[in-house]
Amino acid sequence: METKKMAIIATKGTLDWAYPPFILASTAAALGYEVQMFFTFYGLQLLKKDLSGLKVSPLGNPGMPMKMPFGPRWFKGINWNIPNALQSLVPGYENLATSLMKQTIANNGVASIPELRELCVEADVKMIGCQMTVELFGFDQREFMDGIEYGGAATFFEFAGETDICLFI
Amino acid sequence: METKKMAIIATKGTLDWAYPPFILASTAAALGYEVQMFFTFYGLQLLKKDLSGLKVSPLGNPGMPMKMPFGPRWFKGINWNIPNALQSLVPGYENLATSLMKQTIANNGVASIPELRELCVEADVKMIGCQMTVELFGFDQREFMDGIEYGGAATFFEFAGETDICLFI
Amino acid sequence: METKKMAIIATKGTLDWAYPPFILASTAAALGYEVQMFFTFYGLQLLKKDLSGLKVSPLGNPGMPMKMPFGPRWFKGINWNIPNALQSLVPGYENLATSLMKQTIANNGVASIPELRELCVEADVKMIGCQMTVELFGFDQREFMDGIEYGGAATFFEFAGETDICLFI
Repeated sequence: METKKMAIIATKGTLDWAYPPFILASTAAALGYEVQMFFTFYGLQLLKKDLSGLKVSPLGNPGMPMKMPFGPRWFKGINWNIPNALQSLVPGYENLATSLMKQTIANNGVASIPELRELCVEADVKMIGCQMTVELFGFDQREFMDGIEYGGAATFFEFAGETDICLFI
Repeated sequence: METKKMAIIATKGTLDWAYPPFILASTAAALGYEVQMFFTFYGLQLLKKDLSGLKVSPLGNPGMPMKMPFGPRWFKGINWNIPNALQSLVPGYENLATSLMKQTIANNGVASIPELRELCVEADVKMIGCQMTVELFGFDQREFMDGIEYGGAATFFEFAGETDICLFI
Repeated sequence: METKKMAIIATKGTLDWAYPPFILASTAAALGYEVQMFFTFYGLQLLKKDLSGLKVSPLGNPGMPMKMPFGPRWFKGINWNIPNALQSLVPGYENLATSLMKQTIANNGVASIPELRELCVEADVKMIGCQMTVELFGFDQREFMDGIEYGGAATFFEFAGETDICLFI
């Protein structure tokens, strides 16, 4: 049987949207897929050596349930439906949401973004940074992980055109 | 001729972004496609029995035209270009936008989200809730539709790897 | 060798999210792909004759680095990490971000959205406007580019079901 192939274009640079590309890539690799990820646009943030700057942005996302990840069961069950209007006025709300999300994820035994990314590296997922975005946003390649490649959309199409699954995330 | 297959990963939990997955899934099913939808992340909201909590989040989306869905033609033609700054300060703006969108959609004879979802169920679209997200966000399975399955990304890949179209929405 | 095919569903109507569909479509066309783009939802904005209304919406996107695209190197290197709370309170912030992005892009020799779209037209990328969205949002077809087609999801599936790459953007 031929090896299945998956390509992911990772374009988002927030903590919450960092999960889907790394979870899908590491799962596919574990299932024997050959996987390539192309990081472009805001998604370049996910290649940074230091990922601690990633934040959840609950603004504009009323579908995000905000629950407290600690305390007794009844307390954890409350769905804090904080409206956008308030979110934008409370200083530090974004930081609060970010640390709540990190705690919830750790409490549930789900891997962190650096751990998921490391899983991808160990499973030989090929990671490509978009050269044009690096230049456009004025990034310094020394900010990024070692061992990645840089290329443009044309480079990526060589692989993407042969895939079984190609996702824009 | 072999049956075409489509897989959708539904990850958004707002009213506006609930339309694309259900419209694409029901259309494909009507055209004879075998369709599976994997609801994960904020997208789990779309599996709730009660969908009345879905809201539009115009914040962060300057591309959304806000027009009044009632009144005379000239009045409906005005494009209320409400800036984000104002949106976040006016209490209840999100609720206003949500009810405007629902009215506009009803006035144009477009099906509502519960109706579109029902069309998908009737057309045998297979719906899978992401087990990890259910646990992570502390959802109770009794909140969700009956008759759906639960599984992880690995379950989903079994079908996705064989599809003609696979979309991350 | 058979001609490769790519389909793009363009659903976002902001300046920043206008780049990925047009960059991917024009690159694929240049590589010999047959390309179709289906503009639906907020994405219909990208078909307007006058694209000057497109804006960046940095709200809800903490992954967007805001750097000054002019001045000395050390000055350009500063990453203005403006919190969402502030963004929504400063009148005109959205316009500032938009014009900063346009300048940065021009300074780096990257094509503008109208230029990228023109590249797609010249490369025979087929553009389809979603008829249902046009009616739903009350658009007037005279606002849109000449030479495009209008159709529904069913029209689009005829091509999408035969593609090598199909992306929802």
